[in-house]
Formats: sequence, C-alpha cells, structure tokens
Amino acid sequence: MDITAVNALPCEDFVNIFGNVIEKCPIIAAAVWSKRPFDSLAALETAMSEFIDSLSESGKEGILRCHPDLAGRDLQTGTLTQESREEQAGAGMDSLETAEASRMARLNEEYKGRFGFPFVICARMNDKANILLQLSARCQNERAVERARGIEEVKKICRLRLQSLVLTNKL
Amino acid sequence: MDITAVNALPCEDFVNIFGNVIEKCPIIAAAVWSKRPFDSLAALETAMSEFIDSLSESGKEGILRCHPDLAGRDLQTGTLTQESREEQAGAGMDSLETAEASRMARLNEEYKGRFGFPFVICARMNDKANILLQLSARCQNERAVERARGIEEVKKICRLRLQSLVLTNKL
Repeated sequence: MDITAVNALPCEDFVNIFGNVIEKCPIIAAAVWSKRPFDSLAALETAMSEFIDSLSESGKEGILRCHPDLAGRDLQTGTLTQESREEQAGAGMDSLETAEASRMARLNEEYKGRFGFPFVICARMNDKANILLQLSARCQNERAVERARGIEEVKKICRLRLQSLVLTNKL
Repeated sequence: MDITAVNALPCEDFVNIFGNVIEKCPIIAAAVWSKRPFDSLAALETAMSEFIDSLSESGKEGILRCHPDLAGRDLQTGTLTQESREEQAGAGMDSLETAEASRMARLNEEYKGRFGFPFVICARMNDKANILLQLSARCQNERAVERARGIEEVKKICRLRLQSLVLTNKL
C-alpha cells in the first residue's frame, strides 16, 4: 500500500475507508485524520490506539458497547456490519449447534449483566471452542480487568481490519 | 416520556435508540449509559454534552467529520442517515436551485479546505438563505473558533433529535 495516498485522502474518503476498523466508531478514524501525515499503516494504527487510550473509562466502555454480541441478535437479524458478519462466520458463530448457541447466549447475558458491556474478542484469532472457553473464563474477572481486556481485543480487531483493507486492495 | 424506562434500558437497546442523536457517533450514547440513572432527558443531554467536552480537540474534530456536507455527496447518493435526510429536506437542501447548489458546493469545499472538517449547522433551526449566509460568514473564522462553533451546533442537533425521539413516541 501507498501511505502517501492514504495521507492525501480528503477527510470524507478517509472516514469512509477507515471508519469501521473500530466497530461503529468512525469518530476514531475521523479524529486521527488530524494527525496526518502517517509514516506507515502501523503509525495510523498507533494513532488510533493512542486515541482510544486517551478516552475516559466510560468512553472505553462506550467502544465496547458498540460491538455486537457473538452469535447474538444482530447476527440473527442480519444487521451486523459486513466486517463483523465475516469475522463471526469465520469463527463458526453462524453455525452453532443448538446446545452451543444456548450456552453462548446464556454466557453473553451473564457477562453483560456482570460488566455492563458485551464480551469482545477478536474472532479471527479464535475458534468456536476457544471463544466459549474464554467467554466462560472472563465472566469471572473484575470489571476493570475486563474493560482493559476488551479494549485489547478491540485493538487486535482494528489491526486485522486495517490489514484486510490492504489485502483487498481498497488501499 | 418516562425516564425510569430509559434508565432501565439494556445497553444494546439504549444505543439503538440514542445512538444517532450525535450523528454517526453511537460511542457517545454508549459511553453515557455508564452514567445512569438520569433524572430527566435534560440530564441525559447534559451527560452527552459533558462527554463531548471531555474529548481532545482532535476528538471534537472527529465528531464534526462524522457529519455529512449540507446538500453534499451523501444527499445526492441517498446515503444520509434518516435523521440527516429529514433535517436537510426540512431546510430545503434537497431542492436547491442550480446556482444555489453550486454556491453551496463551492463554499463547502472552501470551508473544508480551510478547517479540515465540514461545516456543521443545526439545519432545523435555519432556512436555506440563512444556511448559505452562515456558511459564507463562518468561512472567515479561525479554526479554533469554528471547531467550538461546530460543536455548539452538534449539541443543538442532539437536543432536537432527543426531543424528536420523545415526540415520535419511541420513548
């Protein structure tokens, strides 16, 4: 990819391309546009990461709450973003057995009831069994630990979405 | 409206209902969900306003960059959010004369070229003539003044969208 071309993008185009690398948070791409020029895609990723870190704890929870449940309502109603749909399908979230689906739904509710934000994990770096294992284990954490852990996962998702934009030649 | 019912909303439902009172920034509704319970709709509005004020200058510019141009590309391609479409139509942005449309397009580009974010104004509180007048006048401001002015307009839009949600019985 040509970072020079990225740096030359008008803000509307930049936000259209990078707006969903953090799920439903185009404000983040839109904010870091102020930080151009970037030396590399990694520098763009770092700027997004720093913006996230600069947010209040409620702001970080806000990012987590913009994420859909895994195998949840949005998957069932077809209202996932394209990125989430592909990622969830890749991890088998759209083809769970009945018992798995029930367990996932129950654990998602338990997690949200405990923390007030949904369970976020980088689906592309995990398979179905591991996602269920992580979800179950992470339900036992403290809220602050899970907030930080969820944000770590958001950053992994961001990195892979940025890389996908390169691979699919949108950049 | 019943603020008790609002305070009882699960985070997904809260974000679904209030997610676009700040254009394309569901993170803001999602963040202030942490601040429940609210005493009133005004208290919810205040929480959103305080969240915006807590952002860095680039974060505030990010909010502005999530807004479409008036009578711009998104209106022409039918990709405005429902709220923006109604607001722009109400101010006559979808039925400009050719000369008006050219002037608007030229001034929008001048504004974005000067400030690095789009011109934001509460369309529901202005008519076509006044929007063109304001756009032309505000092109002369300093960047920091315009950033603050744009954010003031974002807050006016937020207030009217919250009120509309009440009037249309979604609450």
